[in-house]
Amino acid sequence: MNITSFNPPRRILMGPGPSDISPQVLQAQSRPIVGHLDPLFVGMMDEIKFLLQYAFQTSNPHTFAVSAPGSAGMETCFVNLVEPEDKVIVCINGVFGQRMLENVERCGGEAVVVEDSWGEPVSISKVEKALEQHPDAKVLAFVHAETSTGVASDAQALCALAKQHHCLSIVDAVTSLGGIPLKVDEWGIDAIYSGSQKCLSCVPGLSPVSFSQAAIDKLTKRKTKVQSWFLDQSLVMGYWSGEQKRSYHHTAPVTALYALHEALLSLYNEGLEVSWQRHADFHQQLTQGLSELGLELMVDESCRLPQLNLVAVPEGVDEAALRARLLNDYNLEIGAGLGQFAGKAWRIGLMGYAARQENVTLCLAALNDVLKS
Amino acid sequence: MNITSFNPPRRILMGPGPSDISPQVLQAQSRPIVGHLDPLFVGMMDEIKFLLQYAFQTSNPHTFAVSAPGSAGMETCFVNLVEPEDKVIVCINGVFGQRMLENVERCGGEAVVVEDSWGEPVSISKVEKALEQHPDAKVLAFVHAETSTGVASDAQALCALAKQHHCLSIVDAVTSLGGIPLKVDEWGIDAIYSGSQKCLSCVPGLSPVSFSQAAIDKLTKRKTKVQSWFLDQSLVMGYWSGEQKRSYHHTAPVTALYALHEALLSLYNEGLEVSWQRHADFHQQLTQGLSELGLELMVDESCRLPQLNLVAVPEGVDEAALRARLLNDYNLEIGAGLGQFAGKAWRIGLMGYAARQENVTLCLAALNDVLKS
Repeated sequence: MNITSFNPPRRILMGPGPSDISPQVLQAQSRPIVGHLDPLFVGMMDEIKFLLQYAFQTSNPHTFAVSAPGSAGMETCFVNLVEPEDKVIVCINGVFGQRMLENVERCGGEAVVVEDSWGEPVSISKVEKALEQHPDAKVLAFVHAETSTGVASDAQALCALAKQHHCLSIVDAVTSLGGIPLKVDEWGIDAIYSGSQKCLSCVPGLSPVSFSQAAIDKLTKRKTKVQSWFLDQSLVMGYWSGEQKRSYHHTAPVTALYALHEALLSLYNEGLEVSWQRHADFHQQLTQGLSELGLELMVDESCRLPQLNLVAVPEGVDEAALRARLLNDYNLEIGAGLGQFAGKAWRIGLMGYAARQENVTLCLAALNDVLKS
Repeated sequence: MNITSFNPPRRILMGPGPSDISPQVLQAQSRPIVGHLDPLFVGMMDEIKFLLQYAFQTSNPHTFAVSAPGSAGMETCFVNLVEPEDKVIVCINGVFGQRMLENVERCGGEAVVVEDSWGEPVSISKVEKALEQHPDAKVLAFVHAETSTGVASDAQALCALAKQHHCLSIVDAVTSLGGIPLKVDEWGIDAIYSGSQKCLSCVPGLSPVSFSQAAIDKLTKRKTKVQSWFLDQSLVMGYWSGEQKRSYHHTAPVTALYALHEALLSLYNEGLEVSWQRHADFHQQLTQGLSELGLELMVDESCRLPQLNLVAVPEGVDEAALRARLLNDYNLEIGAGLGQFAGKAWRIGLMGYAARQENVTLCLAALNDVLKS
């Protein structure tokens, strides 16, 4: 096999993630590697923690990045906070709610499913009813921003309900963090996970998480060991905690964390509110342009995610062929539909560094070209 | 908090990993990001598989990189291949054997421990006895190269014993891959995991693994679901398999895989035998120099790892202060002792790109300076 170095072209990433990455963040990764217990690196980890607390709007000390993708961040929340036979209310309105259910079952938890149609937000009233019917439920789990459908659910209202019914909340913020308002402390979120490769515009492979004191309390009072050694937060805390000597747990992905530091710093310098507004503004521009092209957005305006737009494939259009043309002729990636929407929708992302004028303009113009020819 | 971009100095990494990384591998990471389902990226994944098969010396189709560090690679092997109540013979002669035991227990397996002193290899005769005493054992698990002690165990003999007693073998090759002879197919290894940041001299955060057909058979015949969704190989196979349409499982760490591709390509171009010899040669030079400095190697020559040298801290020397001086004055990192050897030993690594003349020369000269002053 004749193999040479991999030299990819510059793509414009407007799918469901990974999103575009700024040159600064990409270059941060190629800085010299230092040891994962080097005092300089430990200092950088403290800064990452501070920057993540800002991004999540929390003062939770247990805020850090899991050394693996968002799916592992999800699993981190479930394996630490769900013990065998714990009753967990799981809201499903897309692929990632379904994945939460898988996690509950694999932890030996007892799942109560609250189901909503794909493309709809999680129903507050259905969740309220489930909480009333299951007063012994210990956890409420839902997806804030469903990457498979482009739908935002009302995390604030859902977490308030959880609190009212003495449940911990586990929130999937993979696609929401940095793109739409998210306030962990104000909303009373107990455990939250995100992904580095969405609105943070960092490289994929890291999953920021944050645990409230109530979540830590549940963890420390467990009767059984966490089933995953790698994700056991009672062990990982010793490595990320600034209060004591760092104890070795695993080797952190040093250079990926350089990138996360740079990406979070960029968000911090821009300001969360400015970032949210930028996503909203370019979303407005994109949706108007799509509508002028005769393309239909499939999610109601009231719960539409600005950073991820579910667009109906017009009748008679070969959706995969269109995506291939965008990729091959314009170096532009948009996403395919997932699950129930496979073949029926595209997902156009405006995440993080991708939410910018040149991307929106190119995307609309390229779509116009390929739809007309 | 006043935070600026992180700009580390150039360190020389001669600890237990992460190891030094070539400029080519570091730069590979800052190439433009492409989507994780981009046809170009999928082609690169196929090349990584080929290059990993070469590095592992295997034709196993199920050979790929777990999107997380070596600890997750370890967990991948255990959660997939150990079902509740499976009897597993676990060999412990250092930190990582101990971690294997943690994994067996968290999978609900029944562990039979074969213990050897730290600094000694796994005893073939003890393992043989354990296999005879436990004919119902299903798995034999051991560490090929103990990173905590610098000891190599006889993987070939241990795997032959496992086969003879109808056990699957799980082998930790985190520190061995690329540094000493390792032949997965010839030795009949069933499941093996490694780390990207040791003798492969790639960035930390990935764990190459390979499963034999017998391992796949055990996985597909499981009565229970794998307890980890993220590490469930029956799901991951759909993403890394070249034979069918890639199905989405999680977002691969795209740029870290660029680095792995480049690092594996470098090993392929150098040739495994040449790499093994290079590690052996610089090890000879290092040990001779250490002995001239009056420093004692703590592991018997017969089972010493060339890539990781356990050096006794001389009486009266403040080991942490010495390491700090090497780091601060020479930008040179050597490792502390771990577990039983904490405070008593240093670990000097010669891993991958770190096994080179300038590193050995600097290390010996710097040690000479700081020990004499």
